[in-house]
Amino acid sequence: MSNERYTRGWEKLMQIDGEGGKRVIESMRDIAPDLGKYVVEFAFGEIYAREVLDLKQRQLITIASLTTQGGCEPQLNVHINAALNVGLSPNEVIEAIMHCIPYTGFPRVLNAVFVAKQIFEERNLKIMN
Amino acid sequence: MSNERYTRGWEKLMQIDGEGGKRVIESMRDIAPDLGKYVVEFAFGEIYAREVLDLKQRQLITIASLTTQGGCEPQLNVHINAALNVGLSPNEVIEAIMHCIPYTGFPRVLNAVFVAKQIFEERNLKIMN
Amino acid sequence: MSNERYTRGWEKLMQIDGEGGKRVIESMRDIAPDLGKYVVEFAFGEIYAREVLDLKQRQLITIASLTTQGGCEPQLNVHINAALNVGLSPNEVIEAIMHCIPYTGFPRVLNAVFVAKQIFEERNLKIMN
Amino acid sequence: MSNERYTRGWEKLMQIDGEGGKRVIESMRDIAPDLGKYVVEFAFGEIYAREVLDLKQRQLITIASLTTQGGCEPQLNVHINAALNVGLSPNEVIEAIMHCIPYTGFPRVLNAVFVAKQIFEERNLKIMN
Amino acid sequence: MSNERYTRGWEKLMQIDGEGGKRVIESMRDIAPDLGKYVVEFAFGEIYAREVLDLKQRQLITIASLTTQGGCEPQLNVHINAALNVGLSPNEVIEAIMHCIPYTGFPRVLNAVFVAKQIFEERNLKIMN
Amino acid sequence: MSNERYTRGWEKLMQIDGEGGKRVIESMRDIAPDLGKYVVEFAFGEIYAREVLDLKQRQLITIASLTTQGGCEPQLNVHINAALNVGLSPNEVIEAIMHCIPYTGFPRVLNAVFVAKQIFEERNLKIMN
Repeated sequence: MSNERYTRGWEKLMQIDGEGGKRVIESMRDIAPDLGKYVVEFAFGEIYAREVLDLKQRQLITIASLTTQGGCEPQLNVHINAALNVGLSPNEVIEAIMHCIPYTGFPRVLNAVFVAKQIFEERNLKIMN
Repeated sequence: MSNERYTRGWEKLMQIDGEGGKRVIESMRDIAPDLGKYVVEFAFGEIYAREVLDLKQRQLITIASLTTQGGCEPQLNVHINAALNVGLSPNEVIEAIMHCIPYTGFPRVLNAVFVAKQIFEERNLKIMN
Repeated sequence: MSNERYTRGWEKLMQIDGEGGKRVIESMRDIAPDLGKYVVEFAFGEIYAREVLDLKQRQLITIASLTTQGGCEPQLNVHINAALNVGLSPNEVIEAIMHCIPYTGFPRVLNAVFVAKQIFEERNLKIMN
Repeated sequence: MSNERYTRGWEKLMQIDGEGGKRVIESMRDIAPDLGKYVVEFAFGEIYAREVLDLKQRQLITIASLTTQGGCEPQLNVHINAALNVGLSPNEVIEAIMHCIPYTGFPRVLNAVFVAKQIFEERNLKIMN
Repeated sequence: MSNERYTRGWEKLMQIDGEGGKRVIESMRDIAPDLGKYVVEFAFGEIYAREVLDLKQRQLITIASLTTQGGCEPQLNVHINAALNVGLSPNEVIEAIMHCIPYTGFPRVLNAVFVAKQIFEERNLKIMN
Repeated sequence: MSNERYTRGWEKLMQIDGEGGKRVIESMRDIAPDLGKYVVEFAFGEIYAREVLDLKQRQLITIASLTTQGGCEPQLNVHINAALNVGLSPNEVIEAIMHCIPYTGFPRVLNAVFVAKQIFEERNLKIMN
């Protein structure tokens, strides 16, 4: 039965992504409800619920994966917000994105930084230089 | 003058990648020596030398970026070794790769895990299950 | 002489993509007319005109390829419309996109589903859950 | 409890991938057993077990996704064998790969065709021209 | 000390990208100033300042790399403008993008051509057919 | 009729890729003969036969596209040989690959340089430093 995984996943989703994650799941309700179910049950109920790495480490990895993949600006938006929600500082978010320069080049890094820029403005956050 | 950056980068490279990194730089000596120079000066002398994130966090990000990018098995080999060198456990390395499943799918994750498997065997390391 | 291939390709394009395909070709007329010619002659006049697989199978493959590639939302728009034109149901389109989750991860699948969502709304189509 | 999903997934895996799939799961046993568990439970127990599309359609989609992604030759090997196992002909496999030319270009298509070539030789299959 | 590289890079950036490049650097000032510094010092002060290939050749390569990578439309905008700035004709720009069809497929080529189309309209340039 | 395009394409293929290209076409004869036909007719008979850019410029673009795409080492092998065949120097080939660092990062550039290294050794060519 999937209820346990769904419940655990939904709690993780709320803890990590908050309203942004909820909106993504709801936006799939009429078109692909099982897609939302898998995001909750598998991505959050199984992967994010694992031990060994904490949520800050997991968000660093998520940001690196999404930055490198390219074309995932909507998901970067959700997960940069999530990174801040679990306690990473704006500087740590930017630093994680910039660490990808040698691996994926400047264009994908620039695209990700501009997503972060918009979020920091919305949340009224400042980078310490 | 680039000597300072090169010196700092070389020290970082030795600290992080050790012999594996040295071999990569030397392998470029006759074909593209400046490529080796940029790896040392820019990737290690500038990016890895930055503050805000420590070396363990940087290796988690590097592994996520290389896993997601695909076709970078030689670089994953160097950087999974580097992750172990800076103090990440084998379990943390595997966990970082597995965290990428929801973002990049199983095939790239499998390819990265098989690189890790070979390294752990060479270094006689065990995963704690 | 390319007339035969162009004629066959144009018929295929009209049959499959309809007005959406025509608009793409016309949009290239002043900037890169030969690009439009190659789309018609090669993609439609040669590849889509081949036997062995029917048009429904070809649209499943096209949707999988574009979903996986990422950053091809305009082309997904044309080809999800095309999939419906050749007789695939909205449920089959969504299912084809969702089947890519294990191979390419959730973000690219989400991006493709949101393209489908917009098309289904424009065409007043409903998913049967 | 995941037993039901695992059981259903293992049956699907055996039906579709056969020995090739079993070897992949076993190869992860000592290094990342949960990765094998997720492949069985999620990819096969959930996604492949869904309705709307049959197994032949799903393998066409899988081949398109893996061909387009690139660098997934080991997974293409498993899934081209799977395509043959569920009843696609060698010609249909080649045709599915070739249909990706306009979307992903010749190099990825060539790489996938060479994987198919090796499999057809191992299985002593012929293409009908 | 980096002043010499920064000065050389800034001159290259102004020569090649002009106002478009300046705007990119300035847009990073408050969020990731070091990212702008690395673009200037490394990409322009080191890579573009190298010999062997001239600026026209370098812009052909840049356009091919950005077209192939996908999801880099903002960077294509800057570098198609740059290509025109260093003396490539509109026809040569379009031809460089179209040459990528066999390697990366039609969708990424179409996306790049539409970026070029918008730029040519803004700069009131015509393609000679 | 495709004979004219095939003849023109075959001549181009022989002029540019020489024996390496011939081997690729022949390797497809029994598995996907039409794939070889399309490479000859479309890639070489149409794209490479176009004007506006010369063969040296086209090989610079090809190398950039293949380097950036990743996982295309067999095709890079053919086209780095082709680049040398049409008159680019070893230094220009290396420089073209290195110019991609800021756009696609070090790993893909390293992979491409190692392909070039092997070719230069086989052809007994030296880089001038």
